Amino acid sequence: MASRVNDQSRASSNGLKGKVLTLDTMNPCVRRVEYAVRGPIVQRALELEQELRQGVKKPFTEVIRANIGDAQAMGQRPITFFRQVLALCVYPRLLNSPDFPEDVKRRAERILQACGGQSLGAYTISSGIQLIREDVAQYIERRDGGIPADPNNVFLSTGASDAIVTMLKLLVAGEGRARTGVLIPIPQYPLYSAALAELDAVQVDYYLDEERAWALDIAELQRALRQARDRCCPRVLCVINPGNPTGQVQTRECIEAVIRFAFEEGLFLMADEVYQDNVYAEGSQFHSFKKVLMEMGPPYASQQELASFHSVSKGYMGECGFRGGYVEVVNMDAEVQKQMGKLMSVRLCPPVPGQALLDLVVSPPSPSEPSFRQFQAERQEVLAELAAKAKLTEQIFNEAPGIRCNPVQGAMYSFPRVQLPPRAVQRAQELGLAPDMFFCLCLLEETGICVVPGSGFGQQEGTYHFRMTILPPMEKLRLLLEKLRHFHAKFTNEYS
Amino acid sequence: MASRVNDQSRASSNGLKGKVLTLDTMNPCVRRVEYAVRGPIVQRALELEQELRQGVKKPFTEVIRANIGDAQAMGQRPITFFRQVLALCVYPRLLNSPDFPEDVKRRAERILQACGGQSLGAYTISSGIQLIREDVAQYIERRDGGIPADPNNVFLSTGASDAIVTMLKLLVAGEGRARTGVLIPIPQYPLYSAALAELDAVQVDYYLDEERAWALDIAELQRALRQARDRCCPRVLCVINPGNPTGQVQTRECIEAVIRFAFEEGLFLMADEVYQDNVYAEGSQFHSFKKVLMEMGPPYASQQELASFHSVSKGYMGECGFRGGYVEVVNMDAEVQKQMGKLMSVRLCPPVPGQALLDLVVSPPSPSEPSFRQFQAERQEVLAELAAKAKLTEQIFNEAPGIRCNPVQGAMYSFPRVQLPPRAVQRAQELGLAPDMFFCLCLLEETGICVVPGSGFGQQEGTYHFRMTILPPMEKLRLLLEKLRHFHAKFTNEYS
Repeated sequence: MASRVNDQSRASSNGLKGKVLTLDTMNPCVRRVEYAVRGPIVQRALELEQELRQGVKKPFTEVIRANIGDAQAMGQRPITFFRQVLALCVYPRLLNSPDFPEDVKRRAERILQACGGQSLGAYTISSGIQLIREDVAQYIERRDGGIPADPNNVFLSTGASDAIVTMLKLLVAGEGRARTGVLIPIPQYPLYSAALAELDAVQVDYYLDEERAWALDIAELQRALRQARDRCCPRVLCVINPGNPTGQVQTRECIEAVIRFAFEEGLFLMADEVYQDNVYAEGSQFHSFKKVLMEMGPPYASQQELASFHSVSKGYMGECGFRGGYVEVVNMDAEVQKQMGKLMSVRLCPPVPGQALLDLVVSPPSPSEPSFRQFQAERQEVLAELAAKAKLTEQIFNEAPGIRCNPVQGAMYSFPRVQLPPRAVQRAQELGLAPDMFFCLCLLEETGICVVPGSGFGQQEGTYHFRMTILPPMEKLRLLLEKLRHFHAKFTNEYS
Repeated sequence: MASRVNDQSRASSNGLKGKVLTLDTMNPCVRRVEYAVRGPIVQRALELEQELRQGVKKPFTEVIRANIGDAQAMGQRPITFFRQVLALCVYPRLLNSPDFPEDVKRRAERILQACGGQSLGAYTISSGIQLIREDVAQYIERRDGGIPADPNNVFLSTGASDAIVTMLKLLVAGEGRARTGVLIPIPQYPLYSAALAELDAVQVDYYLDEERAWALDIAELQRALRQARDRCCPRVLCVINPGNPTGQVQTRECIEAVIRFAFEEGLFLMADEVYQDNVYAEGSQFHSFKKVLMEMGPPYASQQELASFHSVSKGYMGECGFRGGYVEVVNMDAEVQKQMGKLMSVRLCPPVPGQALLDLVVSPPSPSEPSFRQFQAERQEVLAELAAKAKLTEQIFNEAPGIRCNPVQGAMYSFPRVQLPPRAVQRAQELGLAPDMFFCLCLLEETGICVVPGSGFGQQEGTYHFRMTILPPMEKLRLLLEKLRHFHAKFTNEYS
């Protein structure tokens, strides 16, 4: 047939053609992507689960996935009100059922009336159902003590990840030393490093201060920025508050300083605030970047560009599977905002059940409604238990020699530092593994506990950590922490 | 504060800083993206709807959105069985209700048992729930007359768009003349051109033959490939069957020839088969690329790389809002397949309600089950009506002077060719609009009918088309077609 120009790789002596798509020919940026939260350790956890099901004997009877913030997988029950409304939205004939409270029905009807053909099965406009964007804006206003929010600045998304990647996609430009640099905290949630690798942007690390409970330090931001300017054009500053994996909650003073820094240095601010409902420590309080920015007044309030992200996956609801979220943009160039809408339209729309769920999260039952009491009780129970588990985690870890854990002020994770004996580090190097990956793999094989090594999030050279969720039920968590402590002691002993 | 290197653009005489993110500094690839299905004409339609609501007088009383394949927005009712099972999955306390058939309950329980924490609110593994991947594989086997399908080659996705973009992302590599070229049909579904612009890959157009009912012609593929080799490295061939926006259904012979061509030329095949349930014309039949490939035997069956896409948004179900879909890969390099899994894991997982819905679509009630009769009746009703509407559309358009419409053999759209008088073309040029965009905008302003100009899909230079869905209810569609015909006559008259 036709000529085969430039394609020698596919011809071979045995008549077989090589693959078109191989590791060598694939997108090199994608190849560089790493995502530890679902990395090799989780693959191994899946294999172990399969072996257990096949009756293979192990020193444990179940794999405990403490690797990912997946509350309902750990047994947390969905909020009844949310699921009742959603069930009616999915199957509207239930609107005639006597088994649902009146406010549940009114809510379902309100959402359905905002859907094309009054069905969750229709596409919505790409930025999300207008009614829900309005409800989100009202939620933001209430949260921020009345500071106005414009629904036209709210874009619904497929979880927060989707919106974060979209925002980064808009910001990445330039070649060589003019390439966009993005400042991210270390340790970070690896969505950031993965997205930057995929987009071929320059990752600029700034280190959180473990000695000060993972506080963000402006001098360190300045250092990171200064050094980065030799190799890229830093244009974006990402902040995660409350912190993932580090669990710190930023003070208002810190946020003000970050905003001043971003403004002076000409950086677009991205605030990952998906854990805004998850604050546990006494004296800690969530301050949104938007609120602080607006209260700082001009020139900050009127000029500093900001995108803030939220999600239905975390908080007290933990509805990860529905993939609902939003981004609010502030002071964004109007033309760029149109471009953002256009980019989102290519994927048509965020999943509509997730949009509906987000609507309920941002406008829960009010005290006068029949569902209020149960809603409030369920919500408080989840949050109180999370607070207790945060405390328990810190306490048990800090009783262990060789483990040191900062207070889990917020979010859903502990990120303790572990001492690993030099022989363990050496053994890991022989195996071609990061030392904390080696530790976590041994932990998994011996106890069934799946946690993610600190190297997947980034950490100061020579320090070792792991991220563990605080989500397992209280008694299981206690057992798990004890097991972990014992394993670390044994491991230390074995390699000393 | 700190120094402001390389950032003169933000300083200005009035003390105001410029924006960090502007049209000039944003990602130029994103700026080049176009997506006509949700483009300016749809923006205008939204504005008109708002004006109508505000009581502004128009020559019409409602905007009819025939721009997008959104069946339920056009009044199509969801399939009862699907929504019943989903409602139980969302709110499992309904499993105790006497109002649901036994098979509905069994299905819901089966899906929930495959979910983390038995909840749709938990994350799933990134490639989708294993049980559902197995059900998809069985569906493919039944569809393809018993040819085996491996669940490990099936990846669930957020609608088909998500999987298509992921696949392209893997395939894009190289710089300058070594940049990946992707052959796409013209007219095309603009997801392809949009994704290629975003990924900075080279779009290589091959033209479908309007004179032969939009058939795919191998000689034209050869021409396109030959010419493309001067400017890029063509590595991918995309085929849409049944065609969008063109509605043709490919013959088995055509598919065989395409596969032979891809094999000889070393091209990765991407088969967009989301309309596989939407075949109406007598004598037309859907043949999957996978089946034809396998039946061709070696070397094709054992070597040709293929990815086939499907979705819950189309077919007889039209569940666009749930964003469910999958891709099956065939003969993919094992290492690349791992990379694909890794890439998908960064977004955690496809929306779980969409996964559940996909499961029901690929394993509908069997004849012995209580829900079968109603399911079958609802399904047949939708498909029979779509077939009648496809026929009606072709018929009415072809009665109009100056409009010519190929048979709508499948999918959900007509793509008629319209003659536009030279003075209309000239007027459009004065306004800086594509002539068919001008026509469609005038149509919208005068009739409220929203269709997408052919220029958004690509067409032979000097020809003009528009894409209109066949989805409005029968009587509304008839009226709409009549209106369109009259408008075209009037428009032609006005500009002659």
